[in-house]
Amino acid sequence: MAQIVTLGEVLMRLSTPGFSRFEQARSLDVTYAGGEANVASALAYWGHSTAHVTRFPDSPIGRAAGQYLRFHGVDISHIQYGGPRMAVYFLETGAALRGSQIVYDRAGSSFATCDPEVFDWDDILKDATWFHWAGITPALSQEAADVCLQGIQAARKKGITVSGDIFYRSNLWKYGKKPSDVLPELTAGTDIVIANHINVKEIFGIECTDFKDACVKLQQAFPQVSRVVDTHRTSLSASHNLLRAYLWNGNEMLETPDVDINPIVDRVGGGDAFIAGLIHGLIRFGDEQKALEFGVAASALKHTIEGDALVSTEAEVEAIRQGETSGRIKR
Amino acid sequence: MAQIVTLGEVLMRLSTPGFSRFEQARSLDVTYAGGEANVASALAYWGHSTAHVTRFPDSPIGRAAGQYLRFHGVDISHIQYGGPRMAVYFLETGAALRGSQIVYDRAGSSFATCDPEVFDWDDILKDATWFHWAGITPALSQEAADVCLQGIQAARKKGITVSGDIFYRSNLWKYGKKPSDVLPELTAGTDIVIANHINVKEIFGIECTDFKDACVKLQQAFPQVSRVVDTHRTSLSASHNLLRAYLWNGNEMLETPDVDINPIVDRVGGGDAFIAGLIHGLIRFGDEQKALEFGVAASALKHTIEGDALVSTEAEVEAIRQGETSGRIKR
Amino acid sequence: MAQIVTLGEVLMRLSTPGFSRFEQARSLDVTYAGGEANVASALAYWGHSTAHVTRFPDSPIGRAAGQYLRFHGVDISHIQYGGPRMAVYFLETGAALRGSQIVYDRAGSSFATCDPEVFDWDDILKDATWFHWAGITPALSQEAADVCLQGIQAARKKGITVSGDIFYRSNLWKYGKKPSDVLPELTAGTDIVIANHINVKEIFGIECTDFKDACVKLQQAFPQVSRVVDTHRTSLSASHNLLRAYLWNGNEMLETPDVDINPIVDRVGGGDAFIAGLIHGLIRFGDEQKALEFGVAASALKHTIEGDALVSTEAEVEAIRQGETSGRIKR
Amino acid sequence: MAQIVTLGEVLMRLSTPGFSRFEQARSLDVTYAGGEANVASALAYWGHSTAHVTRFPDSPIGRAAGQYLRFHGVDISHIQYGGPRMAVYFLETGAALRGSQIVYDRAGSSFATCDPEVFDWDDILKDATWFHWAGITPALSQEAADVCLQGIQAARKKGITVSGDIFYRSNLWKYGKKPSDVLPELTAGTDIVIANHINVKEIFGIECTDFKDACVKLQQAFPQVSRVVDTHRTSLSASHNLLRAYLWNGNEMLETPDVDINPIVDRVGGGDAFIAGLIHGLIRFGDEQKALEFGVAASALKHTIEGDALVSTEAEVEAIRQGETSGRIKR
Amino acid sequence: MAQIVTLGEVLMRLSTPGFSRFEQARSLDVTYAGGEANVASALAYWGHSTAHVTRFPDSPIGRAAGQYLRFHGVDISHIQYGGPRMAVYFLETGAALRGSQIVYDRAGSSFATCDPEVFDWDDILKDATWFHWAGITPALSQEAADVCLQGIQAARKKGITVSGDIFYRSNLWKYGKKPSDVLPELTAGTDIVIANHINVKEIFGIECTDFKDACVKLQQAFPQVSRVVDTHRTSLSASHNLLRAYLWNGNEMLETPDVDINPIVDRVGGGDAFIAGLIHGLIRFGDEQKALEFGVAASALKHTIEGDALVSTEAEVEAIRQGETSGRIKR
Amino acid sequence: MAQIVTLGEVLMRLSTPGFSRFEQARSLDVTYAGGEANVASALAYWGHSTAHVTRFPDSPIGRAAGQYLRFHGVDISHIQYGGPRMAVYFLETGAALRGSQIVYDRAGSSFATCDPEVFDWDDILKDATWFHWAGITPALSQEAADVCLQGIQAARKKGITVSGDIFYRSNLWKYGKKPSDVLPELTAGTDIVIANHINVKEIFGIECTDFKDACVKLQQAFPQVSRVVDTHRTSLSASHNLLRAYLWNGNEMLETPDVDINPIVDRVGGGDAFIAGLIHGLIRFGDEQKALEFGVAASALKHTIEGDALVSTEAEVEAIRQGETSGRIKR
Repeated sequence: MAQIVTLGEVLMRLSTPGFSRFEQARSLDVTYAGGEANVASALAYWGHSTAHVTRFPDSPIGRAAGQYLRFHGVDISHIQYGGPRMAVYFLETGAALRGSQIVYDRAGSSFATCDPEVFDWDDILKDATWFHWAGITPALSQEAADVCLQGIQAARKKGITVSGDIFYRSNLWKYGKKPSDVLPELTAGTDIVIANHINVKEIFGIECTDFKDACVKLQQAFPQVSRVVDTHRTSLSASHNLLRAYLWNGNEMLETPDVDINPIVDRVGGGDAFIAGLIHGLIRFGDEQKALEFGVAASALKHTIEGDALVSTEAEVEAIRQGETSGRIKR
Repeated sequence: MAQIVTLGEVLMRLSTPGFSRFEQARSLDVTYAGGEANVASALAYWGHSTAHVTRFPDSPIGRAAGQYLRFHGVDISHIQYGGPRMAVYFLETGAALRGSQIVYDRAGSSFATCDPEVFDWDDILKDATWFHWAGITPALSQEAADVCLQGIQAARKKGITVSGDIFYRSNLWKYGKKPSDVLPELTAGTDIVIANHINVKEIFGIECTDFKDACVKLQQAFPQVSRVVDTHRTSLSASHNLLRAYLWNGNEMLETPDVDINPIVDRVGGGDAFIAGLIHGLIRFGDEQKALEFGVAASALKHTIEGDALVSTEAEVEAIRQGETSGRIKR
Repeated sequence: MAQIVTLGEVLMRLSTPGFSRFEQARSLDVTYAGGEANVASALAYWGHSTAHVTRFPDSPIGRAAGQYLRFHGVDISHIQYGGPRMAVYFLETGAALRGSQIVYDRAGSSFATCDPEVFDWDDILKDATWFHWAGITPALSQEAADVCLQGIQAARKKGITVSGDIFYRSNLWKYGKKPSDVLPELTAGTDIVIANHINVKEIFGIECTDFKDACVKLQQAFPQVSRVVDTHRTSLSASHNLLRAYLWNGNEMLETPDVDINPIVDRVGGGDAFIAGLIHGLIRFGDEQKALEFGVAASALKHTIEGDALVSTEAEVEAIRQGETSGRIKR
Repeated sequence: MAQIVTLGEVLMRLSTPGFSRFEQARSLDVTYAGGEANVASALAYWGHSTAHVTRFPDSPIGRAAGQYLRFHGVDISHIQYGGPRMAVYFLETGAALRGSQIVYDRAGSSFATCDPEVFDWDDILKDATWFHWAGITPALSQEAADVCLQGIQAARKKGITVSGDIFYRSNLWKYGKKPSDVLPELTAGTDIVIANHINVKEIFGIECTDFKDACVKLQQAFPQVSRVVDTHRTSLSASHNLLRAYLWNGNEMLETPDVDINPIVDRVGGGDAFIAGLIHGLIRFGDEQKALEFGVAASALKHTIEGDALVSTEAEVEAIRQGETSGRIKR
Repeated sequence: MAQIVTLGEVLMRLSTPGFSRFEQARSLDVTYAGGEANVASALAYWGHSTAHVTRFPDSPIGRAAGQYLRFHGVDISHIQYGGPRMAVYFLETGAALRGSQIVYDRAGSSFATCDPEVFDWDDILKDATWFHWAGITPALSQEAADVCLQGIQAARKKGITVSGDIFYRSNLWKYGKKPSDVLPELTAGTDIVIANHINVKEIFGIECTDFKDACVKLQQAFPQVSRVVDTHRTSLSASHNLLRAYLWNGNEMLETPDVDINPIVDRVGGGDAFIAGLIHGLIRFGDEQKALEFGVAASALKHTIEGDALVSTEAEVEAIRQGETSGRIKR
Repeated sequence: MAQIVTLGEVLMRLSTPGFSRFEQARSLDVTYAGGEANVASALAYWGHSTAHVTRFPDSPIGRAAGQYLRFHGVDISHIQYGGPRMAVYFLETGAALRGSQIVYDRAGSSFATCDPEVFDWDDILKDATWFHWAGITPALSQEAADVCLQGIQAARKKGITVSGDIFYRSNLWKYGKKPSDVLPELTAGTDIVIANHINVKEIFGIECTDFKDACVKLQQAFPQVSRVVDTHRTSLSASHNLLRAYLWNGNEMLETPDVDINPIVDRVGGGDAFIAGLIHGLIRFGDEQKALEFGVAASALKHTIEGDALVSTEAEVEAIRQGETSGRIKR
């Protein structure tokens, strides 16, 4: 029974090798990933007991996806099998002035068409102390939105900490609901919100001048929210980024210095690694500044690793947090 | 403007490398293929002008699919772009006593959801002398069935030879129609039918004792049908097959001897290569027996080639037809 | 807590790609495998809860090994971390008249140098109904022999079924003990013995004329042994084998027909797959003949799959057991 | 029938994988490319109808080369087949302070030994509005020089715009002629010349102090020349270049700012992509400054793509031209 | 200084991966090989000191070729560097009824255009006891034919055993000489001739009814010839061959039984491995029957190994010669 | 017989492809390398006759290692075969802020357990003018330390120049001796010492304030030492380093400017390439400043090449030494 439970769609990731374009690739590298599952994977590598909740087709492809999460150390015993298909995304990795490109093929996935009733949240959250969701789930379908709400409410009832990555893609939300119809209720049950001030304005209709202003007003609107967090990326090129983060804890705005990442190996999953790092830091360190820095360090490290998942030890992230970024050989 | 026009869904083919199982594969080989497009590809390598009609998503993936057909020499100027997604199939290649395994993910493809009106058959068939369709198309959706019927009727009107691969998968046909609702009308406009006697019984409700009986009765029911063709495969193992074929021309039943194929490199597309070979033979040789043998030789050769498409010269197939199967080095 | 517990060394398997010789390879495929762990992996794919007991170095290599077993579904929570090194074996896959070749580099491994006291067998076997060991373990070192004996005795005490693969390699046993010093005590606690009559003669000094004779006399010497099992392989070439098996249950000698395997993709782990299939059959079917056939079918299927581990479903093995070896495509 | 026709040798490109040296490579990546064909490929991706004229051996290798151009969308119906061999070039990709290295093996190619009479320029240029040649063609052989002159003259007669990349390699020109013997006549029929002032001095014996001076004097010597274009590359390392370009239109010298490219994925074909971009810009935009910038953007993008050919959409290049070089992910 | 010296062209071998056709391959495997150099390589693996004589271009490609021979253990100190180009051959590996296909691109190679005077045969053959040549060398060019004659004559003068593989390709010999102009003089200086009776008839105009008759008459015509050897291949398919050999020693015709090879991994170089085995046997065993069998065993083993060169130990070949072809795992 | 002789352990190098982590890799690239052998390899590419002395297991793996050195041009005739195992190291290549990671598995290697008596130094050094050793050898075992001392003493007796890379890893030295027990005697016989001032302090107990002070005092303690050399690396990240070097010749401290390396392809072996370059420079140029610069240029070039070995020509290194680091394409 896991301490940290995450919920969300997992996609087959099909990426072109090296820097090949889609038209050039005669093979695609295959892994399985999703924003919330990436959080669970990273945390499992650092010694947390984590479980991911989703639904896969009952096929060799679906079983392969489950195995892949288990490979990372995530408990897959709460995953449901059935439904029409695996969600897929195609990735072409950019370099220099050419950005990476993602093509989604996720409509009608087994997760999006799930029956919300099959997830037994009492059982899933039995030993949990943390529940994490993201804004993409309610964007997929009414069923997915329902599952998300049920998870949050069950966590709320048990007094489990809830974190939510409010970020959403506007080109999802095709089932008749708008973000503003659904996200407020989900946010109301959430302790830690990852969002920027534009999200706050667009989703909740809260007029705000900057991130701090958004944080203050979001807390006023949603009293359960104790912290609001955001990262800031300076994209000099597809190969060279700077990264820093902010955390509002109700009293003050904490921030980190920029971390320089050059060259980037694989940028996808960088945001999820940040969230995992932040959660780890809050649980282990009891120090918000250190937790925020650990999140940025985890995210920076993720940019140097192929695949969505942050495969690392806690010590590796902590060394980067402490400024050891010279990249010397470890023997 | 092409002489031979084929119609049908094209899928992204994602196959595990070597003999890897789905669970083991960390990369997948990618090509683009479909039964009818495979016929067009094989014929293009033998010098025919061929065009394929289908619909792809307007995305890098869809464009890559088009390029792949063009690579084989197929005219792609009648392909439509739009709609939700690329159809996909996953292939795991078996060996010895383990059969290959295919997982389809084709529901809701851009082709299946096409608007039948956008295909201008007068233009598409302007210079055509042959039109080929298969029974999978009407199984996909009402739209696909409509496109298929329009193509056949346009060909009929122009006096173009029509061939149809009646074979169908029973686990498709999910849009409310049954094969027996749709296939009779399509068959009525077809000159050359590829089918076995079980198809004939199941689809048309024609009671028949064997293949010859089925042929005779099918012609009685559908006077336009001038020839009925079938292949027979003896599957000793996933790596060792024997292949022969039969052709009923209204008067007599022609047949070929078995061709021995061992080991099989890639069995997928073997049936399409047979049809391509048969069409080529009928057009070029004006000799049904030779055409039938050319079809079997083409199919056998396909089994030694990776991918759905038969990449070959006419001379290579003809040498096999003439019994040169010793596999000596050509310098 | 696992039902089936296996014990033994796990090695990094480094195999040349395709049919490359060691001298030619510029890359090596890497997986992690060992005879007893292979049994646990195969059983996990068929739905059993399995755990493997061993020791890995506390390094990225050791952690990777653990992850690999977890990928197959094996519980790794009883694995110890520490000691000097990962055992390794190098594999070159043969074809036709060239046999495969294995070079071991396992001396001084973390498992062979373990402290037997750290394994808490009461805890490990808490929910277990089956314990499996093999004759390679006591050949490695006194420490490994001690762990093996402790596992068997703990299982005995709890009334858990014990199976032992008596097979040993004479070029191990370098720590001062001979097989005849150690194996009798281990065998005395074992219910199901996998052995041939030459093993019986060499290890226990039991003179016997054939396999049946060996079985009878082995049972007389070791009353706990209820069944003796052996496989028989006809090696026509590195690519073509026939396989059958025998089981003596105290009353009669059961046997299976030969299964023909051609071509062989990867022969390593074939014996372990047989044992897994046998265990599965005995647990699930309660029918010794069917269990024996399931073992042979599992072993045959393994020969078509890359790697030591049998990645399969129960249905796939059962189909082969029922004679479906024609290798037709599954869609 | 194509609007834009290019002429020139196409070579098999055999490049070492990653950054391997020739001595290290046990496999070579294979594509087919040539300066002028690269121009045709890039333009085909942007929607132009293009055809390339060359000659390949009548072998599987020659056919593969043709297919490769067709893959990119180039009409290959005017390619001749015959002659002794495919031209080849070997490429080793450098990094940091190690430059890439090219070894040519092009002597006696099928194109260099072609019969100039077989190219029917009236037919080839039937619907053409643009003809492009380069200074490497007349350097190969008298036959190639003759073909080039015939193409230019046929274009001149039809009033088709002619562009010529005057750049030449001094280590070619082994058939008895010097650049100054041949290039003046070719240049006399050319509208747009790509050259730098050293080319102008060396080839035409025109003394000039800088690029502008060279442009003015070149126009005086060759009144048909309406524009002279050059790129300027600052090579900080094999992985980091700056790129800008100049265009003299008879009245004023246009120029672009530097574009920063870091890291470079594949620098080969960068000059051809510039020419393709310039041609596209002049045809589509009717704005020389924008066309020049589009050329530089196309060239910069090419540096991030493997292979000689610029596989891209017009929109991708245009975004870079407008300064969007931050490399953010496109979803 | 080497005991066994071989002479001949070495080509870059570019082979498609797996069973890919030329049109499908996006990478080619690269090694360096030639009939006579293959003999030297195989012998070096069995402990002979061997040197190969040829000429490579003075380029990274030429140096890589030299390194590759050195990798196999062949002394490359007598190789000359210079001239225009590396000879190349392209290989597509067949399977089942599809034969492998080779495309040569060897005209004008550095070896074919060598200056015969630069080879100092006194120095090259200083410690030699055996010299081997093949009929392809005099087919390349007058220069190559001259080098070959000089080598044979130098060996003759020193009393060194000379073997010659008379086999030739009729599509070479383009420099004005016919085989019958050149090969008699080379054969006159040769002790051991590898040839079949058709070669004997075509090259020397010797009418003969079968192989034995050819041997007798060849010896009459060329008294230096002490042995005539031939192999016989039964090609059941590209994947399944039988192989045996004959040796006429002036008195009797020795022969071997057929060796069955199934499946074939790489057939190229099989004849060269036979010659190497024969030479080894004659030198080491002093037993013609055993030498002939060792040759066939070596050739059979080569068919299971990728690349032209037989990478093996003497013990491996000897085991096959003694009938150990069951392909069991060696540990 | 070689001019330059090197001594030391050679390890199988197993590196993850691209930037994969150990946990992610399903294949490992394999080469064979060791600090001193890397020196011999680099020098062989520049035309020196070099031999390496070590011991490999008598197995296909050991033979493959020998072949690999021979591939680079190193004489392997003095290598001994026997003993238990090949030393191995696992490498994971880092990028940006993630350093590379090395895991050693070298205990009990065939070299570490060699019999020092089998190396016949009189024969090994017969034609030698230079002998090179490193501080890792005496750290492995008493046997290895003894071999090292014997080599140095034999070289001393013959008046051969001796260079020693004093650098050592503190986590070796497990056989009971400390560096200070063994290294002084080895250093006493050495002419050119590669060391930094911390080594000098820790190994010899010489208190020193900086590198120059260390050099002066080291020479006082060991009069045979004529030069002390060190490199200095500024590690901005795993992908971006600056490199310079210092040489104390007894009179003055020479130094080089920093060379900028960005991006780094493979940093391992960079120090060995420096030593090779220095040795080459001292032998060929007779100019210490130029030799030092050549060493730094060689080291910088190595960073752009995959594998431990510097595969390069002398001209390539010399061009970098002269400041040609713009990375332009060489044709």
